Amino acid sequence: MSAPLKKPIEEFIGADITATMRTIGANARAAARILATLGAVEKKHAIAAMARAIRAATNATLTANREDVAEAEKAGATAAFIDRLRLDEKRIAAMADGVDIVAALPDPVGKVISGWERPNGMRIEQVRVPLGVIGIIYESRPNVTADAGALGLKAGNAVILRGGSDSFLSSRAIHAAIATGLADAGVPGTAIQLVPTRDRDAVGLMLAGLDGAIDVIVPRGGKGLVARVQAEARLPVFAHLDGNCHVYVDKAADPEMAKSIVLNSKMRRTGVCGAAETLLVDKGAAPTLLIPLVRMLIEAGCEVRGDRDTQAADPRVKGATDEDWITEYLDAIIAVKVVDGVDAAIAHVEQYGSHHTDAIVTADRAAAEKFLDRIDSAIVLHNASTQFADGGEFGFGAEIGIATGRLHARGPVGVEQLTTFKYRVRGSGQTRP
Amino acid sequence: MSAPLKKPIEEFIGADITATMRTIGANARAAARILATLGAVEKKHAIAAMARAIRAATNATLTANREDVAEAEKAGATAAFIDRLRLDEKRIAAMADGVDIVAALPDPVGKVISGWERPNGMRIEQVRVPLGVIGIIYESRPNVTADAGALGLKAGNAVILRGGSDSFLSSRAIHAAIATGLADAGVPGTAIQLVPTRDRDAVGLMLAGLDGAIDVIVPRGGKGLVARVQAEARLPVFAHLDGNCHVYVDKAADPEMAKSIVLNSKMRRTGVCGAAETLLVDKGAAPTLLIPLVRMLIEAGCEVRGDRDTQAADPRVKGATDEDWITEYLDAIIAVKVVDGVDAAIAHVEQYGSHHTDAIVTADRAAAEKFLDRIDSAIVLHNASTQFADGGEFGFGAEIGIATGRLHARGPVGVEQLTTFKYRVRGSGQTRP
Repeated sequence: MSAPLKKPIEEFIGADITATMRTIGANARAAARILATLGAVEKKHAIAAMARAIRAATNATLTANREDVAEAEKAGATAAFIDRLRLDEKRIAAMADGVDIVAALPDPVGKVISGWERPNGMRIEQVRVPLGVIGIIYESRPNVTADAGALGLKAGNAVILRGGSDSFLSSRAIHAAIATGLADAGVPGTAIQLVPTRDRDAVGLMLAGLDGAIDVIVPRGGKGLVARVQAEARLPVFAHLDGNCHVYVDKAADPEMAKSIVLNSKMRRTGVCGAAETLLVDKGAAPTLLIPLVRMLIEAGCEVRGDRDTQAADPRVKGATDEDWITEYLDAIIAVKVVDGVDAAIAHVEQYGSHHTDAIVTADRAAAEKFLDRIDSAIVLHNASTQFADGGEFGFGAEIGIATGRLHARGPVGVEQLTTFKYRVRGSGQTRP
Repeated sequence: MSAPLKKPIEEFIGADITATMRTIGANARAAARILATLGAVEKKHAIAAMARAIRAATNATLTANREDVAEAEKAGATAAFIDRLRLDEKRIAAMADGVDIVAALPDPVGKVISGWERPNGMRIEQVRVPLGVIGIIYESRPNVTADAGALGLKAGNAVILRGGSDSFLSSRAIHAAIATGLADAGVPGTAIQLVPTRDRDAVGLMLAGLDGAIDVIVPRGGKGLVARVQAEARLPVFAHLDGNCHVYVDKAADPEMAKSIVLNSKMRRTGVCGAAETLLVDKGAAPTLLIPLVRMLIEAGCEVRGDRDTQAADPRVKGATDEDWITEYLDAIIAVKVVDGVDAAIAHVEQYGSHHTDAIVTADRAAAEKFLDRIDSAIVLHNASTQFADGGEFGFGAEIGIATGRLHARGPVGVEQLTTFKYRVRGSGQTRP
């Protein structure tokens, strides 16, 4: 979350935030029309030019970032907060490399999703087109300015970026570089706009849609931000609030595989949304696997909170309450429960889960298929770690986040899910009888 | 629109509409879980059983409908309104046949949209799953009860129906038949629920989402209803407000084809959303085509409102105002304008259109491709009538409506667009490095 900084709004271009934001919205809509007509090569060149300009502006960006960091330190921000905010040459290089990766992705626009011919001879094609205008609301990580801008543009969309107040100067410096890159490539600068003020009213205006100028909002940040966006937005949101992910170890699980998947799902990185938060152990597997699994987790530095059976398995296990089954710890803590087979595991996940990512470990194909079928989550895995919940790991090249909503985008949101489609119909004079 | 009827709310089951609607929402969510596990054959049988039960309940439905019609007549409803409301044996038979058509459609659920293997050996599949719970809000046509219920169920969704006050008894009779059919097939009756009251607060509660129980709202009715739903809904809506469709006749158009497409687009049925409302004539085509096109339209009984050039072409042409370019007449009226080539046509459509359906008539392939590319509408056609904007004509078998939103559903919304997807990942013990 943001440290409680207050700054004079010297950046604010004009007295009326509503008018400013309306102009930004209209600019974006106009840019979107132009972007929709750009070819794959033009977009690729423009994004590559952005990467070059980001590299060229390293010093200016570092200077701006030092100011942001100094203010955050003065305001008493946590070390973790400062770490998210701070840039160095390596991070700027990585940001530019990430933009180059997006530049090199296959262009999704114009791809024919499906095509068919009608009995009257009309040929119908469903073809990918840009979504339109994407609003990105983010917090302290200034690199989102480049990531999200590039990904949105790759899909032919105009992007409105609203960065965190605390990273305002950094984001502005990165955005200035992006604008230079776009200008070099002959693409309108309004393709990627940064809200030029820390005024928090800008967020509310974006969540109201700027008179229909924004098609979708993507929040990038902590739960506080995502919850606010989901609660207030009057337009579609691609986001997840919770990643309460489960691993279910079935009685037919290979013991070594179970241990390796559980350890990786929980402990590879505990702060990512695909980290497992609850381990469910089949009561048929408990006699042989519960003790070693719990011991392994504790020895890896993980706090275990268990039901009665799990507490009986190891004296170091704390008691789990109902609260634990719904908690996304994002920390080295796991809730563990013994369940009666795959049906009980499914019931638990459906009752307490967040429809993000859930895995089963088993050699029983029927149990696996049931789990994959019945669990209503964006990602369901058989014999693989929940930490694969990531656009890169899915082969998308880059992602703007993970969505747990059910409409349009679900799971890792890559460049393809930032498009929509239209129908192109080619006839030879057909009229409807 | 509804005639201003007032009735005692004798149908209202319980004193608290909020509690009633919350129960309906929870029922639907629970039913959706069960429906997601049904196989294609079970759903097909259930929908066919609905059709049989609708036929068997013909007399009861006609009795209920006579009451609705009598009240509407007493309240002074228009003839068109009564016609939409009135059922007869033929209409009930057609309704049941429509349900049978839905039963016979290919099942969209479980279809693998795409699949790929990762370098680490994981196999990822994107697979179609039901959307969840669909709320349908409709007006005087009681047949929507059957149509929308069947289509939603085919896609594995639970459906909450909120029919018009004026067709309440008819909808209730049809819904009772549907419930019998579902019971015969062993499918939970909560799969398709009808809001059991005329209380208009029910609509507001549905538009607020019933505590997240509804995933999407589909309004079926006039513009007043659609506008209210789009303005008030706090959740996604599949709908179109306006179908301001254009036909552009290019200078390279075949004259006979142009006449036939213009006449069909405007006059086949004037009250459908795919009817053309504006004709754009290339100034290169005007010398030879403007007079015959205008004469043809007027002689077919269509009022023509034109720009100065069009008024000069025929003394019967009235003057068009700016209002005409944005008006969906849904009547035998057309606005006509002479434009300077395909670029000007595109600019006009993008400025005044409603992103529904637009057509170009030309033998010039480059002009056609430009129009198909640049026009940002759900459906763009080359050398075919705008009246093909219809799920049946697209080969979808049935549609729940046409959407002009950009997310998830666009154009005719068939059974496939009432689904979403999830990712199914099959591994062999993979962990993330």
